[in-house]
Amino acid sequence: MAVRLGELARHVGAQLLGDPECLIERVDTIQDATGGAICFLANPKYRKHLAHTRASAVILAAGDRDACPVNALVCDNPYLSYARISGLLYPRPRHPAGIHPSAVVAQSARIDDGVWIGPCAVLGEGVRIGAGSYIGPGCVIERDSRIGAGSRLVANVVVCSGSVIGERALLHPGVVIGSDGFGLANDGGGWVKVPQLGGVVIGDDVEIGANTTIDRGALRDTRIESGVKLDNQIQIAHNVRIGRDTAIAGCVGIAGSTTIGSNCTLGGGVGVVGHLELGDNTHFSAQTLVTRSFPEPGYYSGNFPALPNGEWKKATVRTRQLDEMARRLRRLERRLLELESVRHGDDDT
Amino acid sequence: MAVRLGELARHVGAQLLGDPECLIERVDTIQDATGGAICFLANPKYRKHLAHTRASAVILAAGDRDACPVNALVCDNPYLSYARISGLLYPRPRHPAGIHPSAVVAQSARIDDGVWIGPCAVLGEGVRIGAGSYIGPGCVIERDSRIGAGSRLVANVVVCSGSVIGERALLHPGVVIGSDGFGLANDGGGWVKVPQLGGVVIGDDVEIGANTTIDRGALRDTRIESGVKLDNQIQIAHNVRIGRDTAIAGCVGIAGSTTIGSNCTLGGGVGVVGHLELGDNTHFSAQTLVTRSFPEPGYYSGNFPALPNGEWKKATVRTRQLDEMARRLRRLERRLLELESVRHGDDDT
Amino acid sequence: MAVRLGELARHVGAQLLGDPECLIERVDTIQDATGGAICFLANPKYRKHLAHTRASAVILAAGDRDACPVNALVCDNPYLSYARISGLLYPRPRHPAGIHPSAVVAQSARIDDGVWIGPCAVLGEGVRIGAGSYIGPGCVIERDSRIGAGSRLVANVVVCSGSVIGERALLHPGVVIGSDGFGLANDGGGWVKVPQLGGVVIGDDVEIGANTTIDRGALRDTRIESGVKLDNQIQIAHNVRIGRDTAIAGCVGIAGSTTIGSNCTLGGGVGVVGHLELGDNTHFSAQTLVTRSFPEPGYYSGNFPALPNGEWKKATVRTRQLDEMARRLRRLERRLLELESVRHGDDDT
Repeated sequence: MAVRLGELARHVGAQLLGDPECLIERVDTIQDATGGAICFLANPKYRKHLAHTRASAVILAAGDRDACPVNALVCDNPYLSYARISGLLYPRPRHPAGIHPSAVVAQSARIDDGVWIGPCAVLGEGVRIGAGSYIGPGCVIERDSRIGAGSRLVANVVVCSGSVIGERALLHPGVVIGSDGFGLANDGGGWVKVPQLGGVVIGDDVEIGANTTIDRGALRDTRIESGVKLDNQIQIAHNVRIGRDTAIAGCVGIAGSTTIGSNCTLGGGVGVVGHLELGDNTHFSAQTLVTRSFPEPGYYSGNFPALPNGEWKKATVRTRQLDEMARRLRRLERRLLELESVRHGDDDT
Repeated sequence: MAVRLGELARHVGAQLLGDPECLIERVDTIQDATGGAICFLANPKYRKHLAHTRASAVILAAGDRDACPVNALVCDNPYLSYARISGLLYPRPRHPAGIHPSAVVAQSARIDDGVWIGPCAVLGEGVRIGAGSYIGPGCVIERDSRIGAGSRLVANVVVCSGSVIGERALLHPGVVIGSDGFGLANDGGGWVKVPQLGGVVIGDDVEIGANTTIDRGALRDTRIESGVKLDNQIQIAHNVRIGRDTAIAGCVGIAGSTTIGSNCTLGGGVGVVGHLELGDNTHFSAQTLVTRSFPEPGYYSGNFPALPNGEWKKATVRTRQLDEMARRLRRLERRLLELESVRHGDDDT
Repeated sequence: MAVRLGELARHVGAQLLGDPECLIERVDTIQDATGGAICFLANPKYRKHLAHTRASAVILAAGDRDACPVNALVCDNPYLSYARISGLLYPRPRHPAGIHPSAVVAQSARIDDGVWIGPCAVLGEGVRIGAGSYIGPGCVIERDSRIGAGSRLVANVVVCSGSVIGERALLHPGVVIGSDGFGLANDGGGWVKVPQLGGVVIGDDVEIGANTTIDRGALRDTRIESGVKLDNQIQIAHNVRIGRDTAIAGCVGIAGSTTIGSNCTLGGGVGVVGHLELGDNTHFSAQTLVTRSFPEPGYYSGNFPALPNGEWKKATVRTRQLDEMARRLRRLERRLLELESVRHGDDDT
């Protein structure tokens, strides 16, 4: 697929400097690009490569236009324009329509037009798959679940009974939707299982990374709103709610009944305990443990970054002595005050 | 399924206030329940909904009975009674018996009565499946593994060769049992694999969450005792032992040869290093790193919860200065003592 | 399989004390071993079992030879010798060659000699599988991926399109290779997906634990060099590079574009943020968060280990007061200096 540079400029609303007829066939990095490729310059660290780039065109901000030796698309957010141009040049792979003979599809399942059901996929009774969706090899969709139009379940995804997934979903391999929440009542040491009767409801345009798990609700539903983006290996417990366009990095765990607002970001490895409320536009840095609600927008942290082992040992030993240090500090203050008052008394005499 | 309230009261040993003939058909939350539903009141946060509930009955403690506008089941532990009543109203789904034609079952596999082997499931030579069990779509059970009666492997579960799982197990999608432990011997930089020759032995009534992994032992077995409950995305390394009725929340990692006692709880994201002993009734809060044995019952923590970013920066910078601060504190104490003794000397003169 | 002790001694270059004709058929622990078994003594904690061992032979260091009541193999690194002897006695399981009738293999896939394709495995167009490899049940290998000779994909492994895996790979159940990286450009709150166009390239002799995920690169490839060993539940983001013979324990997360050197070790639960460089021979202890580059060899840490809850509460409260404590300390120093100078003035007078 090749697109004229002028068309790309119109597609992203950028100012074109150079030849609008130049054919662009692919994207590449600024340092590796050759003829036919378009690249972008967003991170100043890469500015040193601009003078030598062999790309056919560079997407960049106004401040870099004069230093660009080739065609340029000038815009406010080069990375965003790059994402859009790349999306145009590399559309989602097309797929055939039909049901592979090795797939097992229940009679009452309703499959809309243009859907592909891959080898060894299994669809239960009452399942509905929206038009144009792709259900990859080894996916299991249990009874009464619904997948919206234009969705893609790559491979070995499991969607448990009664889950609802919106349009244009992208679920990577190993995703599990609608497994039982971890609901247990203690009975003198042993545990009695609390049946998990809610579902999972996922909006439109949600992407879910490889091996991420989202549990079904206990009584009402676990809810993931439209535009949410989840990375790999994330655990989302029962009755969690995640607001629109929130993005969560890999290895995050969110405990039961916590509500996360819209437009939030959670860094990798963040843990959020249960029954909290994190407001819209709250942001948490990597490996932070969140133990109380943060209703206000802001940036929150709670980790202790790596140090050389010797420094770290001193810091942890001292941390354990902190309470004692604080008490010694207070005693010193009292004694000093006494000395000073005596001294002051001396001065007075 | 509908059950008379009087029967539910007897089932959980609760005192019934109201109409024993009232038919209960479902459970719901106290705020959403309508006629035919039973709900519970355990968390004081929800007490405000009691006066307005439209449930047919509420399970509650004696202190709340007078404020209840509808039928009540009075008991000591409303959440436990709710779990039992919900379990009665919503039994595990029934399943047919038989082997789906797309399943691949080795000739020497022994399948007891009432078992269902789902589409595209694969059972190796010498596998034994106990009566009434459900092996869901895409599950792989390698040779010589045994699954006890009444168990349910939901979908895409993998049980590696020679694993032993007890009765009434519930394994959620993506669980892996019996993968090789991480056993390596260093040979001047490179690694020589140590064959993992032990197995995994799991007791009765164990629930294992989605995408949780349990490695086989190196020489002897990894052991999970009866009644253990594991949430999603947990990693259990080779030769770990977990005692009866211990419950572990999501994203926990337990390193090799560690022993965890009975009736313990580990919060989400806890990490336990290898070769430790955690005694019975030890409890660890979320994201705690456990680096030494804790043989005594108790509650242990080790995390630093989230702060607004500015406060956090100050705290981490200061933590690195702690050793210097401690030394300055000691110098101050010495100097002050000297001043005081001089002062004392002044007084004496 | 039984091997003479003399042959085992030669195999590992150990000094044999005892009967070279003694037949060894299995390995076991020093405390459980009986006739026919060989065991090893590496950890001094187990030395107490040496006098009573019923093993046919013990692999041990020179310092323990005199205390050994049975045949001994004396060498510098008993654990390494044990690994090699165990590997000889327990070779990788043999497998038949062929394609199970329930597997779905695209016409253009090229399968070399001695390969087994298991039940319900799915291989896309252009896939190549090297000689003697084993593709277990439920594995999905998307189009144009290549697996080197002598590799083993245990079960339910997913290899996304265009991934390249070297020889003698061992991929445990639930591994996902080549899923999309988490690439998003923000557009006024919403997210635009950045197509993930790179691949994953994995060297020879790489082992990857159950449910570990490795994302494909954004523009260029994610690269795992030969001899790398990855435990379970690890997340490796797009464009990460991991150098030769580095070993990473379970539950680690590595963010995008980070480079890790050769011969490194990362403890369980370590998190590494994006765009960092960790040099060769860097080592990170469990649950450490790495937020800056460490180019120099060394041992780095950043966690705060578990304490009894009461001690932990004091430490965390005090940590939040640290900045205030530091300021009070400085004030004390100033005031004391003033007092001392006054005192000094007194002395002078």
